[in-house]
Amino acid sequence: MKTYLECLPCFLRQALEACRFVTDDEAVHEAVMRETLLNVSKMDLSKTPPEMAYVIQRTIRRMTDNPDPYRHAKEASTRFALGLYPSLKARVDAADDPLEMATRFAVAGNVIDFGISAKMDEDYYMEIIERAARTPFDEAVFSEFRSKLQAARTILYLADNAGEVVFDRLLLDLLPHERIQYVVKSGPILNDATREDVTEAQMPASIHVIESGSDAQGTLLNHCSKEFVELFQQADLIIAKGQANFETLSGLPPRDLYFLLKVKCPMISRKLNAPMGDFIVRNLANMRKQEAE
Amino acid sequence: MKTYLECLPCFLRQALEACRFVTDDEAVHEAVMRETLLNVSKMDLSKTPPEMAYVIQRTIRRMTDNPDPYRHAKEASTRFALGLYPSLKARVDAADDPLEMATRFAVAGNVIDFGISAKMDEDYYMEIIERAARTPFDEAVFSEFRSKLQAARTILYLADNAGEVVFDRLLLDLLPHERIQYVVKSGPILNDATREDVTEAQMPASIHVIESGSDAQGTLLNHCSKEFVELFQQADLIIAKGQANFETLSGLPPRDLYFLLKVKCPMISRKLNAPMGDFIVRNLANMRKQEAE
Repeated sequence: MKTYLECLPCFLRQALEACRFVTDDEAVHEAVMRETLLNVSKMDLSKTPPEMAYVIQRTIRRMTDNPDPYRHAKEASTRFALGLYPSLKARVDAADDPLEMATRFAVAGNVIDFGISAKMDEDYYMEIIERAARTPFDEAVFSEFRSKLQAARTILYLADNAGEVVFDRLLLDLLPHERIQYVVKSGPILNDATREDVTEAQMPASIHVIESGSDAQGTLLNHCSKEFVELFQQADLIIAKGQANFETLSGLPPRDLYFLLKVKCPMISRKLNAPMGDFIVRNLANMRKQEAE
Repeated sequence: MKTYLECLPCFLRQALEACRFVTDDEAVHEAVMRETLLNVSKMDLSKTPPEMAYVIQRTIRRMTDNPDPYRHAKEASTRFALGLYPSLKARVDAADDPLEMATRFAVAGNVIDFGISAKMDEDYYMEIIERAARTPFDEAVFSEFRSKLQAARTILYLADNAGEVVFDRLLLDLLPHERIQYVVKSGPILNDATREDVTEAQMPASIHVIESGSDAQGTLLNHCSKEFVELFQQADLIIAKGQANFETLSGLPPRDLYFLLKVKCPMISRKLNAPMGDFIVRNLANMRKQEAE
Protein backbone atom coordinates (compact mmCIF):
# COMPACT_ATOMS: atom_id res chain seq x y z
CA MET A 1 0.00 0.00 0.00
CA LYS A 2 1.41 3.34 -1.00
CA THR A 3 1.42 6.34 1.30
CA TYR A 4 -1.60 8.58 0.95
CA LEU A 5 -1.57 12.32 1.59
CA GLU A 6 -3.85 11.53 4.57
CA CYS A 7 -0.92 9.60 6.09
CA LEU A 8 1.27 12.72 6.30
CA PRO A 9 -0.50 14.49 9.19
CA CYS A 10 -0.82 11.06 10.83
CA PHE A 11 2.99 10.53 10.73
CA LEU A 12 3.35 13.78 12.66
CA ARG A 13 0.71 12.78 15.19
CA GLN A 14 2.43 9.41 15.64
CA ALA A 15 5.84 11.02 16.00
CA LEU A 16 4.52 13.35 18.70
CA GLU A 17 2.79 10.56 20.63
CA ALA A 18 5.85 8.34 20.35
CA CYS A 19 8.45 10.88 21.44
CA ARG A 20 6.28 11.99 24.35
CA PHE A 21 5.94 8.37 25.36
CA VAL A 22 9.70 7.91 25.29
CA THR A 23 10.89 11.10 27.03
CA ASP A 24 9.59 14.15 28.91
CA ASP A 25 12.28 16.37 27.38
CA GLU A 26 10.36 19.00 25.40
CA ALA A 27 13.44 20.05 23.47
CA VAL A 28 13.66 16.47 22.16
CA HIS A 29 9.96 16.53 21.24
CA GLU A 30 10.46 19.67 19.19
CA ALA A 31 13.63 18.35 17.53
CA VAL A 32 11.91 15.05 16.63
CA MET A 33 8.97 16.92 15.14
CA ARG A 34 11.17 19.24 13.07
CA GLU A 35 13.26 16.37 11.75
CA THR A 36 10.13 14.33 10.99
CA LEU A 37 8.56 17.24 9.10
CA LEU A 38 11.70 17.52 7.01
CA ASN A 39 11.86 13.76 6.38
CA VAL A 40 8.19 13.52 5.45
CA SER A 41 8.55 16.51 3.10
CA LYS A 42 11.03 14.48 1.04
CA MET A 43 9.23 11.13 1.29
CA ASP A 44 8.72 8.92 -1.76
CA LEU A 45 4.95 8.38 -1.59
CA SER A 46 5.20 5.11 -3.51
CA LYS A 47 6.81 3.67 -0.37
CA THR A 48 4.60 2.14 2.30
CA PRO A 49 3.71 3.98 5.54
CA PRO A 50 5.85 1.62 7.73
CA GLU A 51 8.94 2.86 5.88
CA MET A 52 8.30 6.37 7.24
CA ALA A 53 7.41 4.97 10.68
CA TYR A 54 10.84 3.31 10.61
CA VAL A 55 12.58 6.63 9.95
CA ILE A 56 10.57 8.30 12.75
CA GLN A 57 11.38 5.59 15.29
CA ARG A 58 15.06 5.74 14.35
CA THR A 59 15.01 9.51 14.90
CA ILE A 60 13.48 9.06 18.35
CA ARG A 61 15.93 6.33 19.31
CA ARG A 62 18.89 8.42 18.19
CA MET A 63 17.71 11.58 19.93
CA THR A 64 16.87 9.80 23.18
CA ASP A 65 19.82 7.41 23.01
CA ASN A 66 17.40 4.61 23.90
CA PRO A 67 17.54 1.52 21.65
CA ASP A 68 14.30 -0.02 22.95
CA PRO A 69 12.02 2.67 24.39
CA TYR A 70 8.96 0.39 24.46
CA ARG A 71 10.62 -2.36 26.53
CA HIS A 72 8.59 -1.71 29.72
CA ALA A 73 5.37 -1.07 27.83
CA LYS A 74 5.81 -4.35 25.96
CA GLU A 75 6.37 -6.25 29.21
CA ALA A 76 3.27 -4.65 30.71
CA SER A 77 1.11 -5.60 27.74
CA THR A 78 2.42 -9.17 27.85
CA ARG A 79 1.58 -9.39 31.57
CA PHE A 80 -1.88 -7.99 30.85
CA ALA A 81 -2.47 -10.57 28.12
CA LEU A 82 -1.10 -13.44 30.21
CA GLY A 83 -3.58 -12.49 32.93
CA LEU A 84 -6.41 -12.93 30.45
CA TYR A 85 -5.10 -16.09 28.81
CA PRO A 86 -6.67 -18.74 31.09
CA SER A 87 -10.19 -17.31 30.84
CA LEU A 88 -9.95 -16.73 27.08
CA LYS A 89 -8.59 -20.26 26.66
CA ALA A 90 -11.59 -21.62 28.61
CA ARG A 91 -13.97 -19.63 26.38
CA VAL A 92 -12.28 -21.01 23.26
CA ASP A 93 -12.55 -24.57 24.59
CA ALA A 94 -16.22 -24.11 25.46
CA ALA A 95 -17.10 -22.49 22.11
CA ASP A 96 -19.20 -24.30 19.48
CA ASP A 97 -16.40 -23.61 17.04
CA PRO A 98 -13.13 -23.28 18.98
CA LEU A 99 -11.02 -22.45 15.90
CA GLU A 100 -13.33 -19.60 14.95
CA MET A 101 -13.42 -18.22 18.51
CA ALA A 102 -9.62 -18.47 18.83
CA THR A 103 -9.26 -16.56 15.56
CA ARG A 104 -11.60 -13.86 16.83
CA PHE A 105 -9.43 -13.42 19.93
CA ALA A 106 -6.22 -13.47 17.87
CA VAL A 107 -7.62 -10.62 15.76
CA ALA A 108 -8.93 -8.76 18.84
CA GLY A 109 -5.41 -8.98 20.34
CA ASN A 110 -4.35 -6.65 17.54
CA VAL A 111 -5.92 -3.86 19.60
CA ILE A 112 -2.63 -3.68 21.56
CA ASP A 113 -0.81 -1.24 19.29
CA PHE A 114 1.35 1.62 20.56
CA GLY A 115 1.74 2.86 16.99
CA ILE A 116 -1.94 3.86 17.07
CA SER A 117 -2.13 5.13 20.65
CA ALA A 118 0.94 5.36 22.85
CA LYS A 119 -0.89 4.35 25.98
CA MET A 120 -2.20 1.10 27.34
CA ASP A 121 -5.92 1.39 27.98
CA GLU A 122 -6.98 -1.88 29.58
CA ASP A 123 -10.68 -0.97 29.73
CA TYR A 124 -10.69 -0.27 26.02
CA TYR A 125 -8.83 -3.51 25.31
CA MET A 126 -11.41 -5.47 27.32
CA GLU A 127 -14.26 -3.79 25.45
CA ILE A 128 -12.71 -4.84 22.12
CA ILE A 129 -12.09 -8.40 23.29
CA GLU A 130 -15.73 -8.71 24.41
CA ARG A 131 -16.90 -7.26 21.12
CA ALA A 132 -14.79 -9.82 19.25
CA ALA A 133 -16.32 -12.62 21.39
CA ARG A 134 -19.78 -11.53 20.18
CA THR A 135 -18.88 -10.95 16.50
CA PRO A 136 -18.63 -14.03 14.27
CA PHE A 137 -16.73 -13.89 10.97
CA ASP A 138 -18.49 -14.26 7.65
CA GLU A 139 -19.14 -18.00 7.30
CA ALA A 140 -17.88 -18.42 3.75
CA VAL A 141 -14.69 -16.49 4.45
CA PHE A 142 -13.96 -18.38 7.63
CA SER A 143 -14.73 -21.77 6.15
CA GLU A 144 -12.17 -21.13 3.40
CA PHE A 145 -9.61 -20.04 6.03
CA ARG A 146 -10.30 -23.29 7.94
CA SER A 147 -9.71 -25.48 4.87
CA LYS A 148 -6.52 -23.62 3.99
CA LEU A 149 -5.25 -24.09 7.55
CA GLN A 150 -6.00 -27.84 7.32
CA ALA A 151 -4.43 -28.30 3.90
CA ALA A 152 -1.24 -26.26 4.43
CA ARG A 153 1.91 -28.24 5.19
CA THR A 154 3.88 -25.09 5.99
CA ILE A 155 2.38 -22.02 7.67
CA LEU A 156 4.30 -18.81 8.20
CA TYR A 157 2.66 -16.80 10.99
CA LEU A 158 3.87 -13.17 10.94
CA ALA A 159 3.52 -11.77 14.45
CA ASP A 160 2.64 -8.17 15.14
CA ASN A 161 2.87 -6.72 18.65
CA ALA A 162 4.04 -7.85 22.09
CA GLY A 163 1.03 -8.79 24.21
CA GLU A 164 -0.83 -9.71 21.02
CA VAL A 165 1.47 -12.75 20.94
CA VAL A 166 -0.45 -14.24 23.89
CA PHE A 167 -3.66 -13.93 21.89
CA ASP A 168 -1.96 -15.62 18.92
CA ARG A 169 -1.23 -18.57 21.22
CA LEU A 170 -4.97 -19.25 21.47
CA LEU A 171 -5.04 -19.85 17.73
CA LEU A 172 -1.66 -21.60 17.56
CA ASP A 173 -2.86 -24.01 20.29
CA LEU A 174 -5.36 -25.42 17.79
CA LEU A 175 -2.93 -25.81 14.88
CA PRO A 176 -0.32 -28.53 14.25
CA HIS A 177 2.80 -26.92 15.73
CA GLU A 178 5.24 -28.82 13.48
CA ARG A 179 3.89 -27.04 10.42
CA ILE A 180 4.25 -23.52 11.84
CA GLN A 181 7.01 -20.95 11.86
CA TYR A 182 6.19 -17.96 14.07
CA VAL A 183 8.01 -14.88 12.75
CA VAL A 184 9.17 -11.96 14.88
CA LYS A 185 11.26 -8.85 14.24
CA SER A 186 15.03 -9.12 14.53
CA GLY A 187 15.24 -5.97 16.63
CA PRO A 188 12.94 -3.66 18.57
CA ILE A 189 10.66 -1.20 16.77
CA LEU A 190 7.76 0.39 18.63
CA ASN A 191 5.98 -2.40 20.51
CA ASP A 192 6.46 -5.03 17.78
CA ALA A 193 7.18 -8.52 19.06
CA THR A 194 10.77 -9.76 19.21
CA ARG A 195 12.07 -13.13 20.35
CA GLU A 196 12.25 -11.85 23.92
CA ASP A 197 8.54 -10.93 23.87
CA VAL A 198 7.62 -14.38 22.61
CA THR A 199 9.54 -15.98 25.47
CA GLU A 200 7.79 -13.69 27.95
CA ALA A 201 4.46 -14.67 26.37
CA GLN A 202 5.24 -18.29 27.36
CA MET A 203 5.02 -19.58 23.80
CA PRO A 204 5.16 -23.44 23.83
CA ALA A 205 8.60 -24.78 22.91
CA SER A 206 6.99 -26.80 20.12
CA ILE A 207 6.35 -23.60 18.15
CA HIS A 208 9.32 -22.76 15.96
CA VAL A 209 10.11 -19.06 16.37
CA ILE A 210 12.20 -17.36 13.67
CA GLU A 211 13.32 -13.81 12.93
CA SER A 212 12.53 -11.92 9.75
CA GLY A 213 15.97 -10.33 9.61
CA SER A 214 14.38 -6.89 9.74
CA ASP A 215 13.55 -4.45 12.52
CA ALA A 216 11.00 -2.49 10.49
CA GLN A 217 7.27 -2.70 11.10
CA GLY A 218 5.27 -5.03 8.89
CA THR A 219 7.21 -7.18 6.42
CA LEU A 220 9.41 -5.19 4.06
CA LEU A 221 10.85 -8.08 2.06
CA ASN A 222 13.80 -6.00 0.84
CA HIS A 223 14.77 -5.47 4.50
CA CYS A 224 14.46 -9.17 5.42
CA SER A 225 17.10 -11.90 5.46
CA LYS A 226 17.61 -14.18 2.47
CA GLU A 227 16.63 -17.18 4.63
CA PHE A 228 13.37 -15.56 5.64
CA VAL A 229 12.51 -14.49 2.10
CA GLU A 230 12.97 -18.10 0.94
CA LEU A 231 10.64 -19.38 3.65
CA PHE A 232 8.20 -16.64 2.74
CA GLN A 233 8.23 -17.62 -0.93
CA GLN A 234 7.79 -21.32 -0.22
CA ALA A 235 5.18 -21.35 2.54
CA ASP A 236 1.83 -22.88 1.62
CA LEU A 237 0.00 -20.38 3.77
CA ILE A 238 0.90 -17.09 5.39
CA ILE A 239 -0.95 -15.49 8.28
CA ALA A 240 -0.05 -11.82 8.56
CA LYS A 241 -1.14 -9.98 11.69
CA GLY A 242 -1.84 -6.27 11.91
CA GLN A 243 -2.07 -3.20 9.75
CA ALA A 244 1.66 -2.82 9.04
CA ASN A 245 1.74 -6.28 7.46
CA PHE A 246 -1.24 -5.29 5.34
CA GLU A 247 0.45 -2.04 4.33
CA THR A 248 3.66 -3.79 3.33
CA LEU A 249 2.26 -7.01 1.77
CA SER A 250 -1.08 -6.11 0.18
CA GLY A 251 0.68 -5.16 -3.08
CA LEU A 252 2.12 -8.66 -3.65
CA PRO A 253 0.87 -10.99 -6.39
CA PRO A 254 -2.07 -13.23 -5.38
CA ARG A 255 -1.33 -16.15 -3.05
CA ASP A 256 -2.82 -17.68 0.07
CA LEU A 257 -1.89 -14.95 2.53
CA TYR A 258 -4.42 -14.10 5.21
CA PHE A 259 -4.48 -10.67 6.77
CA LEU A 260 -5.79 -10.83 10.34
CA LEU A 261 -6.21 -7.34 11.75
CA LYS A 262 -8.38 -4.78 13.43
CA VAL A 263 -9.10 -1.76 11.21
CA LYS A 264 -7.62 1.29 12.95
CA CYS A 265 -6.88 3.67 10.06
CA PRO A 266 -9.30 5.41 7.65
CA MET A 267 -7.16 4.62 4.58
CA ILE A 268 -7.02 0.89 5.40
CA SER A 269 -10.75 1.03 6.09
CA ARG A 270 -11.23 2.44 2.59
CA LYS A 271 -8.86 -0.08 0.95
CA LEU A 272 -10.55 -3.04 2.67
CA ASN A 273 -14.01 -1.55 2.23
CA ALA A 274 -14.59 -2.28 5.90
CA PRO A 275 -15.69 0.06 8.71
CA MET A 276 -13.23 1.41 11.28
CA GLY A 277 -12.87 -1.03 14.18
CA ASP A 278 -13.84 -4.03 12.06
CA PHE A 279 -12.16 -7.42 12.67
CA ILE A 280 -10.67 -8.66 9.42
CA VAL A 281 -9.79 -12.12 8.04
CA ARG A 282 -9.02 -11.52 4.36
CA ASN A 283 -7.14 -13.62 1.82
CA LEU A 284 -4.80 -11.72 -0.53
CA ALA A 285 -5.66 -14.26 -3.29
CA ASN A 286 -9.35 -13.24 -3.15
CA MET A 287 -8.63 -9.53 -2.83
CA ARG A 288 -6.69 -9.66 -6.09
CA LYS A 289 -9.53 -11.57 -7.81
CA GLN A 290 -12.05 -8.96 -6.66
CA GLU A 291 -9.83 -6.12 -7.91
CA ALA A 292 -9.60 -7.83 -11.31
CA GLU A 293 -13.38 -8.19 -11.63
CA MET B 1 -1.11 32.04 21.88
CA LYS B 2 2.05 30.28 20.80
CA THR B 3 2.03 27.28 18.48
CA TYR B 4 1.94 23.93 20.29
CA LEU B 5 3.46 20.75 18.90
CA GLU B 6 -0.12 19.47 18.64
CA CYS B 7 -0.74 22.22 16.07
CA LEU B 8 1.83 20.77 13.63
CA PRO B 9 -0.12 17.69 12.46
CA CYS B 10 -3.20 19.92 12.40
CA PHE B 11 -1.53 22.38 9.97
CA LEU B 12 -0.97 19.44 7.63
CA ARG B 13 -4.57 18.27 7.96
CA GLN B 14 -5.79 21.81 7.29
CA ALA B 15 -3.50 22.21 4.28
CA LEU B 16 -4.80 18.95 2.79
CA GLU B 17 -8.45 19.84 3.36
CA ALA B 18 -7.91 23.32 1.99
CA CYS B 19 -6.03 22.37 -1.18
CA ARG B 20 -8.56 19.61 -1.94
CA PHE B 21 -11.32 22.15 -1.49
CA VAL B 22 -9.66 24.51 -3.95
CA THR B 23 -8.59 22.11 -6.73
CA ASP B 24 -8.94 18.47 -7.86
CA ASP B 25 -5.37 18.45 -9.18
CA GLU B 26 -3.57 15.77 -7.16
CA ALA B 27 -0.15 17.02 -8.23
CA VAL B 28 -1.02 20.37 -6.64
CA HIS B 29 -2.20 18.59 -3.47
CA GLU B 30 1.13 16.80 -3.16
CA ALA B 31 3.14 19.94 -3.91
CA VAL B 32 1.19 21.95 -1.32
CA MET B 33 1.74 19.22 1.28
CA ARG B 34 5.48 19.01 0.61
CA GLU B 35 5.94 22.76 0.75
CA THR B 36 3.83 22.97 3.92
CA LEU B 37 5.89 20.22 5.60
CA LEU B 38 9.03 22.17 4.79
CA ASN B 39 7.57 25.47 6.01
CA VAL B 40 6.27 23.95 9.24
CA SER B 41 9.64 22.27 9.86
CA LYS B 42 11.22 25.74 10.03
CA MET B 43 8.42 27.47 11.92
CA ASP B 44 9.12 29.72 14.88
CA LEU B 45 6.83 28.17 17.50
CA SER B 46 6.59 31.41 19.44
CA LYS B 47 4.45 32.69 16.54
CA THR B 48 0.69 32.14 16.63
CA PRO B 49 -1.03 29.39 14.59
CA PRO B 50 -2.71 31.88 12.20
CA GLU B 51 0.75 32.93 11.02
CA MET B 52 1.34 29.42 9.68
CA ALA B 53 -2.21 29.25 8.30
CA TYR B 54 -1.35 32.42 6.38
CA VAL B 55 1.71 30.80 4.83
CA ILE B 56 -0.34 27.69 3.89
CA GLN B 57 -3.12 29.72 2.27
CA ARG B 58 -0.58 31.75 0.32
CA THR B 59 1.02 28.52 -0.93
CA ILE B 60 -2.36 27.23 -2.12
CA ARG B 61 -3.26 30.51 -3.79
CA ARG B 62 0.08 30.64 -5.59
CA MET B 63 -0.04 27.01 -6.72
CA THR B 64 -3.63 27.23 -7.94
CA ASP B 65 -3.30 30.77 -9.26
CA ASN B 66 -6.59 31.57 -7.51
CA PRO B 67 -6.56 34.71 -5.35
CA ASP B 68 -9.90 33.96 -3.62
CA PRO B 69 -10.63 30.23 -3.67
CA TYR B 70 -13.38 30.47 -1.04
CA ARG B 71 -15.44 33.08 -2.93
CA HIS B 72 -18.31 30.72 -3.86
CA ALA B 73 -18.25 28.95 -0.49
CA LYS B 74 -18.45 32.30 1.27
CA GLU B 75 -21.42 33.37 -0.87
CA ALA B 76 -23.17 30.07 -0.13
CA SER B 77 -22.69 30.44 3.62
CA THR B 78 -23.97 34.01 3.50
CA ARG B 79 -27.08 32.85 1.59
CA PHE B 80 -27.58 30.06 4.14
CA ALA B 81 -27.32 32.52 7.03
CA LEU B 82 -29.60 35.10 5.35
CA GLY B 83 -32.22 32.36 4.99
CA LEU B 84 -32.13 31.83 8.76
CA TYR B 85 -31.98 35.49 9.72
CA PRO B 86 -35.75 36.29 9.88
CA SER B 87 -36.55 33.32 12.14
CA LEU B 88 -33.54 33.90 14.39
CA LYS B 89 -34.43 37.60 14.60
CA ALA B 90 -37.98 36.66 15.67
CA ARG B 91 -36.57 34.34 18.36
CA VAL B 92 -34.31 37.11 19.65
CA ASP B 93 -37.24 39.57 19.77
CA ALA B 94 -39.41 37.02 21.62
CA ALA B 95 -36.69 36.06 24.12
CA ASP B 96 -36.86 37.08 27.79
CA ASP B 97 -33.42 38.56 27.34
CA PRO B 98 -32.97 39.54 23.69
CA LEU B 99 -29.34 40.72 24.13
CA GLU B 100 -28.34 37.41 25.67
CA MET B 101 -30.13 35.38 22.98
CA ALA B 102 -28.59 37.51 20.20
CA THR B 103 -25.14 36.93 21.71
CA ARG B 104 -25.76 33.17 21.80
CA PHE B 105 -26.61 33.22 18.10
CA ALA B 106 -23.62 35.43 17.30
CA VAL B 107 -21.35 32.88 19.01
CA ALA B 108 -23.15 29.93 17.37
CA GLY B 109 -22.57 31.57 13.96
CA ASN B 110 -18.87 30.93 14.57
CA VAL B 111 -19.64 27.31 13.59
CA ILE B 112 -19.26 28.42 9.94
CA ASP B 113 -15.51 27.93 9.63
CA PHE B 114 -13.81 26.44 6.58
CA GLY B 115 -10.50 26.48 8.45
CA ILE B 116 -11.86 23.70 10.67
CA SER B 117 -13.77 21.71 8.08
CA ALA B 118 -13.64 22.60 4.38
CA LYS B 119 -17.26 21.70 3.79
CA MET B 120 -20.55 23.32 4.54
CA ASP B 121 -22.68 20.99 6.61
CA GLU B 122 -26.04 22.74 7.06
CA ASP B 123 -27.49 20.00 9.30
CA TYR B 124 -24.55 20.33 11.66
CA TYR B 125 -24.84 24.13 11.63
CA MET B 126 -28.53 23.88 12.53
CA GLU B 127 -27.78 21.49 15.37
CA ILE B 128 -25.25 23.95 16.81
CA ILE B 129 -27.63 26.91 16.45
CA GLU B 130 -30.36 24.98 18.27
CA ARG B 131 -27.92 23.98 20.98
CA ALA B 132 -26.92 27.64 21.40
CA ALA B 133 -30.60 28.60 21.68
CA ARG B 134 -30.92 26.18 24.64
CA THR B 135 -27.62 27.08 26.36
CA PRO B 136 -27.58 30.27 28.47
CA PHE B 137 -24.29 31.95 29.34
CA ASP B 138 -23.06 32.15 32.92
CA GLU B 139 -25.11 34.94 34.49
CA ALA B 140 -22.24 36.80 36.16
CA VAL B 141 -20.12 36.73 33.00
CA PHE B 142 -22.94 37.88 30.77
CA SER B 143 -24.08 40.62 33.14
CA GLU B 144 -20.56 42.08 33.08
CA PHE B 145 -20.56 41.89 29.26
CA ARG B 146 -23.92 43.73 29.23
CA SER B 147 -22.64 46.56 31.45
CA LYS B 148 -19.46 46.94 29.38
CA LEU B 149 -21.56 47.14 26.20
CA GLN B 150 -23.75 49.81 27.77
CA ALA B 151 -20.82 51.84 29.11
CA ALA B 152 -18.53 51.73 26.06
CA ARG B 153 -18.53 54.81 23.87
CA THR B 154 -16.47 53.08 21.18
CA ILE B 155 -16.78 49.40 20.35
CA LEU B 156 -14.51 47.64 17.87
CA TYR B 157 -16.21 44.46 16.64
CA LEU B 158 -13.65 42.15 14.96
CA ALA B 159 -15.53 39.97 12.46
CA ASP B 160 -14.54 36.39 11.73
CA ASN B 161 -16.11 34.49 8.84
CA ALA B 162 -18.50 35.18 5.97
CA GLY B 163 -21.95 33.86 6.83
CA GLU B 164 -21.15 34.40 10.51
CA VAL B 165 -21.54 38.12 9.70
CA VAL B 166 -25.31 37.61 9.39
CA PHE B 167 -25.36 36.16 12.92
CA ASP B 168 -23.36 39.15 14.14
CA ARG B 169 -26.13 41.38 12.78
CA LEU B 170 -28.52 39.92 15.38
CA LEU B 171 -26.28 41.29 18.12
CA LEU B 172 -25.40 44.52 16.30
CA ASP B 173 -29.15 45.21 15.85
CA LEU B 174 -29.39 45.64 19.63
CA LEU B 175 -26.38 47.95 20.01
CA PRO B 176 -26.08 51.70 19.30
CA HIS B 177 -24.70 51.67 15.74
CA GLU B 178 -22.96 55.03 16.03
CA ARG B 179 -20.55 53.61 18.62
CA ILE B 180 -19.52 50.60 16.56
CA GLN B 181 -16.80 49.93 14.03
CA TYR B 182 -17.19 46.52 12.39
CA VAL B 183 -13.75 45.27 11.29
CA VAL B 184 -13.12 42.97 8.30
CA LYS B 185 -10.00 41.69 6.56
CA SER B 186 -8.46 43.81 3.81
CA GLY B 187 -8.18 40.83 1.46
CA PRO B 188 -9.46 37.27 1.18
CA ILE B 189 -8.04 34.50 3.40
CA LEU B 190 -9.96 31.24 3.76
CA ASN B 191 -13.59 32.16 4.39
CA ASP B 192 -12.84 35.19 6.54
CA ALA B 193 -15.19 38.10 6.01
CA THR B 194 -14.16 40.95 3.73
CA ARG B 195 -16.08 44.13 2.88
CA GLU B 196 -17.79 42.30 0.00
CA ASP B 197 -19.12 39.62 2.38
CA VAL B 198 -20.51 42.26 4.72
CA THR B 199 -22.36 43.88 1.84
CA GLU B 200 -23.76 40.50 0.79
CA ALA B 201 -24.82 39.91 4.41
CA GLN B 202 -27.02 43.04 4.08
CA MET B 203 -25.35 44.86 6.94
CA PRO B 204 -27.31 48.06 7.76
CA ALA B 205 -25.68 51.19 6.34
CA SER B 206 -25.60 52.69 9.84
CA ILE B 207 -22.88 50.20 10.86
CA HIS B 208 -19.46 51.63 10.08
CA VAL B 209 -17.40 48.91 8.35
CA ILE B 210 -13.61 49.29 8.34
CA GLU B 211 -10.68 47.15 7.20
CA SER B 212 -7.87 45.96 9.47
CA GLY B 213 -5.23 46.50 6.80
CA SER B 214 -4.32 42.81 6.97
CA ASP B 215 -5.38 39.72 5.07
CA ALA B 216 -4.22 37.26 7.75
CA GLN B 217 -6.60 35.34 9.98
CA GLY B 218 -7.26 36.72 13.41
CA THR B 219 -5.73 40.10 14.28
CA LEU B 220 -1.96 40.22 13.88
CA LEU B 221 -1.38 43.80 14.94
CA ASN B 222 2.02 43.96 13.24
CA HIS B 223 0.24 43.14 9.92
CA CYS B 224 -2.47 45.77 10.41
CA SER B 225 -2.63 49.37 9.22
CA LYS B 226 -1.51 52.23 11.44
CA GLU B 227 -5.06 53.64 11.37
CA PHE B 228 -6.53 50.35 12.55
CA VAL B 229 -3.95 49.90 15.31
CA GLU B 230 -4.81 53.37 16.64
CA LEU B 231 -8.52 52.55 16.73
CA PHE B 232 -7.65 49.25 18.38
CA GLN B 233 -5.62 50.95 21.08
CA GLN B 234 -8.25 53.59 21.78
CA ALA B 235 -11.47 51.56 21.72
CA ASP B 236 -13.30 51.30 25.04
CA LEU B 237 -14.39 47.76 24.24
CA ILE B 238 -13.35 45.16 21.72
CA ILE B 239 -15.43 42.17 20.66
CA ALA B 240 -13.23 39.56 18.95
CA LYS B 241 -15.00 36.74 17.14
CA GLY B 242 -13.55 33.30 16.56
CA GLN B 243 -10.56 31.17 17.48
CA ALA B 244 -8.02 33.00 15.28
CA ASN B 245 -8.71 36.26 17.13
CA PHE B 246 -8.20 34.38 20.41
CA GLU B 247 -4.96 32.88 19.12
CA THR B 248 -3.59 36.23 18.00
CA LEU B 249 -4.89 38.50 20.82
CA SER B 250 -4.96 36.41 24.00
CA GLY B 251 -1.33 37.35 24.75
CA LEU B 252 -2.08 41.11 24.98
CA PRO B 253 -2.02 43.00 28.29
CA PRO B 254 -5.34 43.05 30.17
CA ARG B 255 -8.11 45.26 28.80
CA ASP B 256 -11.81 44.97 28.07
CA LEU B 257 -11.63 42.64 25.10
CA TYR B 258 -14.29 39.96 24.82
CA PHE B 259 -13.61 36.75 22.96
CA LEU B 260 -16.80 35.33 21.46
CA LEU B 261 -16.16 31.91 19.97
CA LYS B 262 -17.07 28.28 19.72
CA VAL B 263 -14.28 25.96 21.00
CA LYS B 264 -13.16 23.83 18.04
CA CYS B 265 -9.55 22.98 18.93
CA PRO B 266 -8.19 20.89 21.82
CA MET B 267 -5.41 23.38 22.61
CA ILE B 268 -7.85 26.30 22.86
CA SER B 269 -10.11 24.06 24.94
CA ARG B 270 -7.19 23.52 27.31
CA LYS B 271 -6.20 27.22 27.38
CA LEU B 272 -9.77 28.33 28.12
CA ASN B 273 -10.41 25.40 30.44
CA ALA B 274 -13.64 24.81 28.52
CA PRO B 275 -14.89 21.65 26.81
CA MET B 276 -14.73 21.20 23.03
CA GLY B 277 -17.84 22.68 21.40
CA ASP B 278 -18.43 25.15 24.24
CA PHE B 279 -19.79 28.64 23.48
CA ILE B 280 -17.45 31.22 24.97
CA VAL B 281 -17.87 34.84 26.12
CA ARG B 282 -14.64 35.65 27.95
CA ASN B 283 -13.05 38.99 28.89
CA LEU B 284 -9.27 39.21 28.41
CA ALA B 285 -9.11 41.50 31.49
CA ASN B 286 -10.52 38.72 33.70
CA MET B 287 -8.41 35.99 32.11
CA ARG B 288 -5.26 37.90 33.01
CA LYS B 289 -6.48 38.39 36.59
CA GLN B 290 -7.14 34.64 36.94
CA GLU B 291 -3.72 33.80 35.54
CA ALA B 292 -2.11 36.12 38.12
CA GLU B 293 -3.98 34.49 41.04
